[in-house]
Amino acid sequence: MSTPPRADRAIEETDRFRPRFDAAGLMPCIAVDAATGEVLMLAWISEAALAETLTTGFAHYWSRSRGALWKKGETSGAVQKIVDVRTDCDQDAVLYRVEVALREGTCHTGRTTCFYRRVRPGPGGLDRPLDFDPDEGGSQ
Amino acid sequence: MSTPPRADRAIEETDRFRPRFDAAGLMPCIAVDAATGEVLMLAWISEAALAETLTTGFAHYWSRSRGALWKKGETSGAVQKIVDVRTDCDQDAVLYRVEVALREGTCHTGRTTCFYRRVRPGPGGLDRPLDFDPDEGGSQ
Repeated sequence: MSTPPRADRAIEETDRFRPRFDAAGLMPCIAVDAATGEVLMLAWISEAALAETLTTGFAHYWSRSRGALWKKGETSGAVQKIVDVRTDCDQDAVLYRVEVALREGTCHTGRTTCFYRRVRPGPGGLDRPLDFDPDEGGSQ
Repeated sequence: MSTPPRADRAIEETDRFRPRFDAAGLMPCIAVDAATGEVLMLAWISEAALAETLTTGFAHYWSRSRGALWKKGETSGAVQKIVDVRTDCDQDAVLYRVEVALREGTCHTGRTTCFYRRVRPGPGGLDRPLDFDPDEGGSQ
């Protein structure tokens, strides 16, 4: 994994897009439902995925498991129409605000978000229970 | 960068926390304002940062530039009190929903979110303009 150097003001205050991909050519991308504000998923984008998104107006990602560019919803129907694309201060992360065509297809488990479990807080290490969000039953 | 194998149902449907860090021992973490739903930042967490967050109830991250565990707001005062911590389907990303103590200290540029610029959509490559969000003036 790369460790990008600390971004400077030239990156933070510029009005030019200068996306900073990691050593593998990827960066993390957050997808948010523009209507509800809900965080839907965290996925990865390549330069090509980001260019496709900006050109077509539909969310594209890079699948690390398949090693392929991926138009979200191409098979499931849960396409994500772009409302806007934002970059962060040091331009090494991107946020897609989207309109969702098929809410239940957002997560491949049949849920409307990938973040359907809460981690139980309190003292201790990381081996601890998860609580399912009762609003997120999924298709199973 | 690691490419975690595709998570299976044992990861997706379990009620045990089995966080999957990358080869550098990190994973991406999204921070959201629990009151407004706004995405505040994308940062990185280590096992220790995540354990500190769950134990203390305040957001901790791993600074890749400084190579150090970091309690958000320790110097700026913009601490993030945890409302809940969520994990995603394949348990390789985390979402902190937080209460923000000092909104203008969330981004180190003096803004209330790190995602204060929109990428101009349309045809073409990635060399394109950014539009500043007029609501996010920053301290400069």
